[in-house]
Amino acid sequence: MPLSIYDASIPVFERALRNLDAILTKAEEHAAANGIDLSELAAARLAPDMFPLTGQIQSASDSAKFAAARLTGTTGPSFADTETTFEELHARIAKTLDYLASVDRAGFEGAETREIVQKSRRGERHFVGQAYLLTFALPNFFFHVTTAYDILRHKGVPVGKSDYLGAF
Amino acid sequence: MPLSIYDASIPVFERALRNLDAILTKAEEHAAANGIDLSELAAARLAPDMFPLTGQIQSASDSAKFAAARLTGTTGPSFADTETTFEELHARIAKTLDYLASVDRAGFEGAETREIVQKSRRGERHFVGQAYLLTFALPNFFFHVTTAYDILRHKGVPVGKSDYLGAF
Repeated sequence: MPLSIYDASIPVFERALRNLDAILTKAEEHAAANGIDLSELAAARLAPDMFPLTGQIQSASDSAKFAAARLTGTTGPSFADTETTFEELHARIAKTLDYLASVDRAGFEGAETREIVQKSRRGERHFVGQAYLLTFALPNFFFHVTTAYDILRHKGVPVGKSDYLGAF
Repeated sequence: MPLSIYDASIPVFERALRNLDAILTKAEEHAAANGIDLSELAAARLAPDMFPLTGQIQSASDSAKFAAARLTGTTGPSFADTETTFEELHARIAKTLDYLASVDRAGFEGAETREIVQKSRRGERHFVGQAYLLTFALPNFFFHVTTAYDILRHKGVPVGKSDYLGAF
């Protein structure tokens, strides 16, 4: 049985977001044990012109949300990108997971060839669904999840690859 | 037409590795223009117990190579992980791409349900092919590609998300 676009998107996003949520919890525990201000971690970034932790998590959430919506030809919820605290970041991940869980597998019928138009500052990009998922949505999603992890590792949070990959 | 395991692996790895190769070239140009020692970039890391740039690229190469071999039930080439220079890193990416190009699409027949045993320091993990690709191989591959990018961004190399995602 070949892969479905659903299998290659929704459960992949859900798994990585749950792992990311657990990584945030480990960061909070590390901060509490070492007298580190959580707001310092939330605002940490790897380069002055990269998003901080908050922005990486908002972008991971958006990548998953937009992929689910575009691949099913529907409109996802709007999230305001106002999170600044760990509590709010957990809530952002939770509402992204709630949305992903609400997206029906049947809505992915024909997603491989669905025409997807992505608007950005650089103009419009046109994809069919399969190419959108494989060349844009998945790489972009993992970029933001990994960079969130990398920021926390750079700040000394004791997490490892097994936290990123999750339990098997 | 649903996705094939081939489509969700080999071309995805190839695209990201080509983008990574171009990012290395931009890093070399930046170093040359700013009097930065390339060996400093090659050895840079985000945390003392994380792999440096060289190790991230070796791991990205290995993630792709092992996925291709395991999903087709074959054995890939052995790479010695001795790269220290940018020239050697480009060569590592090139030989990984050569190997990926040599992997026949027909070898992926039945890959979804192929039993895959992965041995690591922690013991054995058993997967079927689809779960291996989606829960391990793709997340792990993008982890190392993104972290290589993040190291270079952290060191001031002027690359952006469009370099990571590549041309559309």
